[in-house]
This record gives sequence, C-alpha cells and structure tokens, in this order.
Amino acid sequence: MKDKQVEHIKIHKYQSGIISQNSDKVAVEEPLQIQLSYSTTTGQMLKDIAVTMRTPGNDEELAAGFLFTEGIIEHAKAISEIKRSHADENKLLVVLKENIVPVLGNAARNFYTTSSCGVCGKASIDAISTVSQFAGAKDNLNISQSVLFHLQDDCKKQQQVFEETGGIHACALFDKDGKFIMLREDVGRHNALDKIIGADLLKGQLPLNNCILFLSGRASFELVQKAVMAGITIIAAVGAPSSLAVELAKENDVTLIGFLRKDTFNIYCGEQRITL
Amino acid sequence: MKDKQVEHIKIHKYQSGIISQNSDKVAVEEPLQIQLSYSTTTGQMLKDIAVTMRTPGNDEELAAGFLFTEGIIEHAKAISEIKRSHADENKLLVVLKENIVPVLGNAARNFYTTSSCGVCGKASIDAISTVSQFAGAKDNLNISQSVLFHLQDDCKKQQQVFEETGGIHACALFDKDGKFIMLREDVGRHNALDKIIGADLLKGQLPLNNCILFLSGRASFELVQKAVMAGITIIAAVGAPSSLAVELAKENDVTLIGFLRKDTFNIYCGEQRITL
Repeated sequence: MKDKQVEHIKIHKYQSGIISQNSDKVAVEEPLQIQLSYSTTTGQMLKDIAVTMRTPGNDEELAAGFLFTEGIIEHAKAISEIKRSHADENKLLVVLKENIVPVLGNAARNFYTTSSCGVCGKASIDAISTVSQFAGAKDNLNISQSVLFHLQDDCKKQQQVFEETGGIHACALFDKDGKFIMLREDVGRHNALDKIIGADLLKGQLPLNNCILFLSGRASFELVQKAVMAGITIIAAVGAPSSLAVELAKENDVTLIGFLRKDTFNIYCGEQRITL
Repeated sequence: MKDKQVEHIKIHKYQSGIISQNSDKVAVEEPLQIQLSYSTTTGQMLKDIAVTMRTPGNDEELAAGFLFTEGIIEHAKAISEIKRSHADENKLLVVLKENIVPVLGNAARNFYTTSSCGVCGKASIDAISTVSQFAGAKDNLNISQSVLFHLQDDCKKQQQVFEETGGIHACALFDKDGKFIMLREDVGRHNALDKIIGADLLKGQLPLNNCILFLSGRASFELVQKAVMAGITIIAAVGAPSSLAVELAKENDVTLIGFLRKDTFNIYCGEQRITL
C-alpha cells in the first residue's frame, strides 16, 4: 500500500473580493483499528484495543508505540508480528509471542488515553510513574540553550505534509547537539509521538534518554505521559503546556520547555539540563 | 466551587541571552469523569461513561453536551439532574429520568470518540447521518462573506483564558449577521464544542441551524461530527480541515470554511450559503 497522507480536493477560494475555484490539498485523516492477538491457557485471544483517527503511514510504528506507551506491552520482543488486514487496510493485528501476557487490567485507561483524554489526575500520575520502566533513572543529559533555537526551523524543513496542507502536527527527535534524528507527522499529535516511540521500540533504541523531543504544538498531559514511558527527559514545545503537563513533568524530573521561539523560551521545570 | 481555569506557576524565562525567574500562567487541565445513572427493570444502573481531560468550568454543559453529541441521550428532557460528587469535584453524575433508556449500544463508539479519535471511516459517517435527528433538514441559512472576517477578532476579545495562557482552544457561536452569541474555551477543542452544544441543549435551543460555529483551530472529523449532531450548518475554522472532516461535511450538506484570515478563506463545501 502506498500511504496516502495528502488528498487533493476542489475548493472555492475567496481572496480580495474575488471567489475562484481552486484545487487544494488536505491532510488525510482515517481510522486505524488496532487489534491484539495473544495466547491464553484456554486458546488464542483476539481483542480490539483501540481505534484512533490518524494520518496513514508508519502504521506499524503507531500500533507498536501505542501498545508500549499505554503500558500494554513492555518491550518489542513481546511482538511476534504485525499484520495488516487484507479486507481493510485500516486494520492492524498485533500478534504477541507465546507466553506474553498483555497488561489489559485497566481497560478504561486503555480506552480513554487515546487522545487529549485520559484517566488522569493524581491517581494516574502515580500510575505513570509506576508503569514506566524508565522512571526515576538518573541521567546526565545536558544541552546548550543555543541548540534549542534551530529545532523549529530544522523540523519545518522535514514537515512535508504540513508544507502541503498546513493542517498536521509534528513530533521530532533531535540528539543532544541538536542534530535531527527523525520526524513523524499526523493529524493527531499523540499519534505522531506514538509513531516516533514505536519506531525506536521496534529498532531496540529505547530509552530515548539522550534525545530532545520537539513538539510542533502544545504540551498536554498525554504527550508528557507518552514521553515519560519512552524515557525522554527533555521536551521542547512551540506551544503552551497545560497545568497537568507541567505537574507530570515535574514528578518525573523531565525538562519541559514551552513557547520556543527564535530567541526566547520558557522552562517550566528541569532547568538543570539547560546550559547557558 | 470556583472554577479554576488558570494556574499561576514559577518558570525560568530565557530572553536575549538572559535567564530570569518569572511567574507565568498556564491553562488548567484536569480529568472530568462522567457517570450515568438510569433505571432499568432490574433496578437503578450506574455506568462510567467517559473521562475527558478538560479545563474546569461549565462542567454540567460539557457532560450534557457530550451525552448528546455522542448520541447517548436525545434531548435535555432525558436528564433529571446533574450532580457533582462531594468527594471528588472532578466527577459528575448525570441522572436520567425514569423510563429514559440511554443509547449505549455501541459502547466502543462512546469510548473512542472522546477526542481526535473515533470509530470512524465510512461506516461511522453513515452512523452519524442516521443518529443525528437534525440530519437532512432543509435550511435557508445564508450569510454574507463580510460577516466572516470579523469572527476571529470578535472571538479573541472574549478569549480570556487564551489571553492569559496562550494555551487553549476556543469555539464560539455567532448569529447569521455575525453577532457574537457565546464562547467556550478548553484545553480540548472537542470539550469546548460540547460545552457550547450542552449549554444550548439545556436551554432548549437546539438545533443550531441559524448560527455560525467558529473554531479557533483546525477542523477534524470529530468536530464536524459533533456540529452535525447539533444541527449546525455553517462551520468557519481558522485552521485546516482534514480529509474526513470535508467528507463528513459534504455528506451532511454542511458549509465548511477553513483558513479564515483577514481577507481570505477557503470554502471546502456548501458554498451556496455564502453570498458575496
């Protein structure tokens, strides 16, 4: 399948008093259904895990990343294979290896955390700290403030779908010297982050405790939560953080930067990792 | 309870080579748990419906709007009362009147549609058209293009939390002459829209087929879906629409405008409602 991330449509454009027919490009939004297959003492189980509205592309990364950041699987070795449905290209089946038991105990959490929503608040902040296998690890990561200022420009150069549609979020990874590593775009910012984390999970490159995570928009509770799951310790966002994003970052000793501009930024917590 | 929508925190601000301690304001993000109580032949049922990350304020509107736009209740008269938990102010119980049966059949849909995600695609587009009691109604709504250009400025004047934090979405209603009616702000744009629709539901003012819905950001499938449920026929967004948002708007004969600027906008469908 050639992933279609941009769709061409006909529109009417109004400009300076004149209306004209134009062709335009919009970011593709389609549902991805993630199913899980795993063995139990009574036989093979098939379970619907989530349906997320995403931009097609890197779906296997998205599925793997989602299962990992939601705490359903603990490592890439849990996965035997990821199969796409022949009948429906928007359906992926993740088959776990024998003897791997997915953590589905808190089903509500799995349901609700798919986007800006989540089973959250204090109880959940504790849950995240407990669930993340990388929480509490000491790191000596330190970056120069000068590194931060070119992240947005470097990211924009790679944002192909945004360039064409103006309607899509991006997450990117940079190394501690500001060198671009990878970027993913998606209509759902949580999907873009799951794709990045899923890619690194599948390549055996977690934790990402030596990287800077760049967010093209705001920093929500959910994005910080997913970053914590992957062991990320520096998050730099162009937009504002929410109160709960700051709280979660503090509790997990994550450096959270917001309102990153050409010459300014705010550090909400974890300022020890930024050298002037 | 005084709703706290803005939180004051201490940050470090970097500007022009100097780092200083500052106080800053962030938009509050907290979970709201919505529970439903309804009578059955075997007694009173209590069911967890959703947990959504929202900015506190107008929670009753949010709960009512969510239940309505998700198709769980059909009208305000279904609600007997909305009670806040004494133990947890982030928990609301919506009690339905006797003999009212909530539509919980498609539980997966209720779970997944809370944010950018949803049980979507073609199947769901049909479902929406079926579920919305206002779908297919003929309207003669017509607005002048000149009305569109001041919506953003008028909205900004009312965006108190955005003004303070820069980190929050807004939805607003205007009448067909561009007169401001109401605005809601929330860290989740779906919540802002549910608050608007919930407010009108509770006041008995649905369908909103005589109004313009203004969105401060992008137009996703989910936002168009909720608008359709409330009978809204004109949506004007500052940001880009997704492919599925355009498709859903077309199928429901909704006028969808994107990239609304000072002097330009794109009409993705329903151009017959705009007079030059």
